[in-house]
Amino acid sequence: MGALTTLPDRSVARLPEEELIRRVVQALGVAAPPFPEGPGGDCAHLDTTRGGRKYRASTIDSVLLGRHFDAACAGHRAGAKLVNRNLSDLAAAGATPSDGLLSLLLAPDVDVAWLEDFAHGAGQAANRAGLRLVGGDICRAPAGTFAATLALQGFAHRILTRRTASSGDAVFVTGQLGGSLYGRHLDFTPRLAEGEWLCGQGEVTACTDLSDGLAKDLPGLLGPKLDARIDLGALPLSDAARALAKADGKPATEHALTDGEDYELLFTVAADRADLLERSFRQAFPLTPLTRLGATEAGSGRFLDLATGEPVKAKGFGHFG
Amino acid sequence: MGALTTLPDRSVARLPEEELIRRVVQALGVAAPPFPEGPGGDCAHLDTTRGGRKYRASTIDSVLLGRHFDAACAGHRAGAKLVNRNLSDLAAAGATPSDGLLSLLLAPDVDVAWLEDFAHGAGQAANRAGLRLVGGDICRAPAGTFAATLALQGFAHRILTRRTASSGDAVFVTGQLGGSLYGRHLDFTPRLAEGEWLCGQGEVTACTDLSDGLAKDLPGLLGPKLDARIDLGALPLSDAARALAKADGKPATEHALTDGEDYELLFTVAADRADLLERSFRQAFPLTPLTRLGATEAGSGRFLDLATGEPVKAKGFGHFG
Repeated sequence: MGALTTLPDRSVARLPEEELIRRVVQALGVAAPPFPEGPGGDCAHLDTTRGGRKYRASTIDSVLLGRHFDAACAGHRAGAKLVNRNLSDLAAAGATPSDGLLSLLLAPDVDVAWLEDFAHGAGQAANRAGLRLVGGDICRAPAGTFAATLALQGFAHRILTRRTASSGDAVFVTGQLGGSLYGRHLDFTPRLAEGEWLCGQGEVTACTDLSDGLAKDLPGLLGPKLDARIDLGALPLSDAARALAKADGKPATEHALTDGEDYELLFTVAADRADLLERSFRQAFPLTPLTRLGATEAGSGRFLDLATGEPVKAKGFGHFG
Repeated sequence: MGALTTLPDRSVARLPEEELIRRVVQALGVAAPPFPEGPGGDCAHLDTTRGGRKYRASTIDSVLLGRHFDAACAGHRAGAKLVNRNLSDLAAAGATPSDGLLSLLLAPDVDVAWLEDFAHGAGQAANRAGLRLVGGDICRAPAGTFAATLALQGFAHRILTRRTASSGDAVFVTGQLGGSLYGRHLDFTPRLAEGEWLCGQGEVTACTDLSDGLAKDLPGLLGPKLDARIDLGALPLSDAARALAKADGKPATEHALTDGEDYELLFTVAADRADLLERSFRQAFPLTPLTRLGATEAGSGRFLDLATGEPVKAKGFGHFG
């Protein structure tokens, strides 16, 4: 679909705002409902009874050129990433996606066709998840900028969140970890079905999605009063983590702990129900890998190696610093 | 509170993401509810029954350094502007503010104290309106960037929006128009109470807020099948519009038509109920100016001068082009 930046005659700067919005909305496709439930007014107007569930889960996240994708990335892959990483937060809450608002900050030389491809990818990813993109705004930004922010609302029967695990709970993770830079950070399916299912199991005590790497996200899941004792030998290593380890000489385990952007679900289960939940999960999702990593215990937010009893030396990446 | 950009030792680049989030949340003050209803999880968790109204109004908008405020602007004024211009969209929908998500894109040299002042201003504006800031994200951005995006949810008893007026409806506007650059674009109170009240009056047929100027927003309110016939002599000119007219030699009327960022409510009322509504409004809001500008008629989206019958030659500013 061509490059992100372009010559003046194909750039967003040559189009009036209304035409740019019209093209983005058109590229979103069926994911954008008709006015006034969708774009076109000061607000989108939604029926509050939609979903029929007790709680609304609300989350926001962005993708930036140079940070979450590069200028060689196809528009639709960047657009899908924006939607899917936000959906991963809803999956962690066990929520069913409902509606989203899209904000775009565009440098004047952004290519119109690339932007339409971005919206097309975002619309397709939204549609797959039953998410409606109901509104947005577009704003001109300094040279070099392409930033897209998405705010999502979903609905859930109960609150599934972090920092609600108890001492002794079993720790599970879906999928395989590490090496997302080899492509998975752009191409992944958020674990929505698994999250909704986990939300319905009362013995699931806490849940998050892996965005910064297990080494950082597991303490984040448990909070400051629990330690995790983890069997590092049990870590589900992705092929990409092994390939990356060969390329850079670091252990594949370290990649699995710190690479980030796994977008898998990490959750805890009451100890006496953990075996049963594991079996039920495998029946419900035979194609989704599930690994029991270890257990929680009273502590101070540490990530302990089951083999040595020592804190693991590894650091997930932060967005700053 | 100091400048937006700063030396490395006071910049956001020196702080880890968690500490930056902690400081922003603290500066938001009581507007940020405690976890899990507020910041700290993958999602904020809200009770869907909150509000007890039939419709949810959903809107998103941004402020950017260099576009909506400049580097000399105090942080709290920029933060209040972000919140208030979004609230103005809810006011146009007649919705009661509920909750918002805040996304920040920060260049490495943004001053931490300026950022905290920004969050303080945003939190105060939110609090005045009963709006809770329930979550957000922070992302590092290229040099020269400060962008803040806010996504809001509000609740309303009925849908009050654009493009729903009928031929013959009376056209009203609140407040005074033009010259917002003299300061009002930063310091204004969104017309939330007026919007809620208008939403409760069945004879109000359509409503929007003035962001791009009457010349552009009135056709936007009416849609492509109605003309507006407006008494330009009746336009409520602000003192700032008159002062600006003296300074640049353009007619004050042109400033009132095209300056933008008025953040007043523009609405239509069924003709046979317009006199009564006007009286009721003045009783309910004795301090809010209300002007009857003219009427709609079957047409093609034109803005006609009542005196000449000709289309008005003026153009509201667009975000692009």
